[in-house]
Amino acid sequence: MSSETAFIAALRTIATSPAARGLTDDAAVLDIGNSRLVLTMDAIVEGVHFLANDPPDTIAWKLVATNVSDLAAKGALPKGCLLSYPLADDKSWNTAFLAGLDAASRHFNIPLLGGDTVRQPLGSARSFSLVAFGEPLRGVPVPSRAEARRGDQIWISGVVGDAGLGLALLRGERRAERESYNALVAAYRQPRPNPALGIALAPHVSAMMDVSDGVLIDMQRLAEASGVAAVIDLNRLALSSAYTMTAGDSLDSRIFAASAGDDYCLLLAAPPRNEAAIRAAATAYDSDLHCIGQIDEGHALTLLYDNQPIPLPAHIGFEH
Amino acid sequence: MSSETAFIAALRTIATSPAARGLTDDAAVLDIGNSRLVLTMDAIVEGVHFLANDPPDTIAWKLVATNVSDLAAKGALPKGCLLSYPLADDKSWNTAFLAGLDAASRHFNIPLLGGDTVRQPLGSARSFSLVAFGEPLRGVPVPSRAEARRGDQIWISGVVGDAGLGLALLRGERRAERESYNALVAAYRQPRPNPALGIALAPHVSAMMDVSDGVLIDMQRLAEASGVAAVIDLNRLALSSAYTMTAGDSLDSRIFAASAGDDYCLLLAAPPRNEAAIRAAATAYDSDLHCIGQIDEGHALTLLYDNQPIPLPAHIGFEH
Repeated sequence: MSSETAFIAALRTIATSPAARGLTDDAAVLDIGNSRLVLTMDAIVEGVHFLANDPPDTIAWKLVATNVSDLAAKGALPKGCLLSYPLADDKSWNTAFLAGLDAASRHFNIPLLGGDTVRQPLGSARSFSLVAFGEPLRGVPVPSRAEARRGDQIWISGVVGDAGLGLALLRGERRAERESYNALVAAYRQPRPNPALGIALAPHVSAMMDVSDGVLIDMQRLAEASGVAAVIDLNRLALSSAYTMTAGDSLDSRIFAASAGDDYCLLLAAPPRNEAAIRAAATAYDSDLHCIGQIDEGHALTLLYDNQPIPLPAHIGFEH
Repeated sequence: MSSETAFIAALRTIATSPAARGLTDDAAVLDIGNSRLVLTMDAIVEGVHFLANDPPDTIAWKLVATNVSDLAAKGALPKGCLLSYPLADDKSWNTAFLAGLDAASRHFNIPLLGGDTVRQPLGSARSFSLVAFGEPLRGVPVPSRAEARRGDQIWISGVVGDAGLGLALLRGERRAERESYNALVAAYRQPRPNPALGIALAPHVSAMMDVSDGVLIDMQRLAEASGVAAVIDLNRLALSSAYTMTAGDSLDSRIFAASAGDDYCLLLAAPPRNEAAIRAAATAYDSDLHCIGQIDEGHALTLLYDNQPIPLPAHIGFEH
């Protein structure tokens, strides 16, 4: 058991309120008056979630986007956020960060409502926390991770792997043509989750979550929380042209795309009878949705490539 | 202008939603359905808000208590909290932290609903963020800092200075008898804000906030936000017997008590006609409330000691 798994297991013995959803979800759901509020909190840490030399405005963007991604997966309309900011004596850094915060806050229509600034100890990695909250549509259940059922189709929004390849480029582990380089690095630094799509999908899904650590590891988490098995067809994952021009299209490159982190797309399970509604939601919000597999009985995650089962790789995700 | 003041001024140009209250308050107030939610976020950082060798359970307690203190000042009943936790590979530290989190969550009746664990980079100061949210009583305005009016009485709950003196003891800057030592250190490590008192006071106040950085600096903030002057009579501040046995009762010791941080008591301004209601609330919740001055026209903070005006000290608070 990893130290994070052990810690969360211990936390679970404390977080016994139904609103905590057993800490298996990325968000809490609070009943308040005649409404509900979805709350999520994501921190990003230098050297873990972003690189020390990433432009500060993109770090702010990513902080907002990762939280908005959780709201999108819970079908919640962003209502506001609070920021915890470690204040270093670097005025131009702070100014650039704020510009990115402002841009993201406008792009995602999520007003900044408050927070806390604290002194940043010398030599410490920068660490930012954001809390985002949103309101689900009245009468629509907030999708959990834990309700996928046998026979459900598995869907994913958009392309995968761009952000992970962007990180590899920034680390100097890969090379790319300039245009692809820029697109892939932008995918890593400035993810663009789509709450409107999540809200439109929420009434039709059995389970939904966002992909932050990689398709395979997050699919495994969804299946485990639901007590089911999942079959993923790697050929059906959508790859961008920047991705295939840089990494090719092979088993290896599809495994890389499915186990790299930072996609911030939506992963969902839904009964086949909802396929038309799901495709309609995607069309309405100008998004690509791809059916990449199905839910089975059992407990395993099975991968297919060229219609053959292939072994699960040792590394199935990027645990932040 | 300090870098924090400059940063918050810049943040204010982004945080233009009415729910942000101009970032002059410690909390945001969100309209949700037919109700309202008060949200606050406080981070605590090793070496700034707590000492590296403080027991981990007391660090968790303090994290919860500082946020509950903000809810108390806004007259909000705690509904839940989310934690951002930097995970280090020290299992016994994590376990002790969780025990303190559980104890505080029970003491303040504030369920843990979720959050985020992140990897703690080697050599970085520990930094924890908590978001707490609570619901104000229906029909009662959420007190702000900015509505104190000329003629209001200034009240404060409990004793002041214990926590600041406790920190001085822990730093080896002062000495105390064992019993006083324990009481003062406990005041620093485990503050005990009282939301029930804040909720009972809220209908009767013009302005209310919690004292986290020191009576003088926080009084100055309240007066500045309200556009008024304040007169504080140092003789009327309540000191504990542990405090006076250790630091004596002199002008110097009262200045120290009024400019030390971490009291986490309530500071409020209210019209004199509400005095009976305020005293009744204090009695009902078994709390001491002390009238320590009044609000005047103008902009200055005036201190009295033995009925004489005395100059404001250079250091009026502990800016975390």
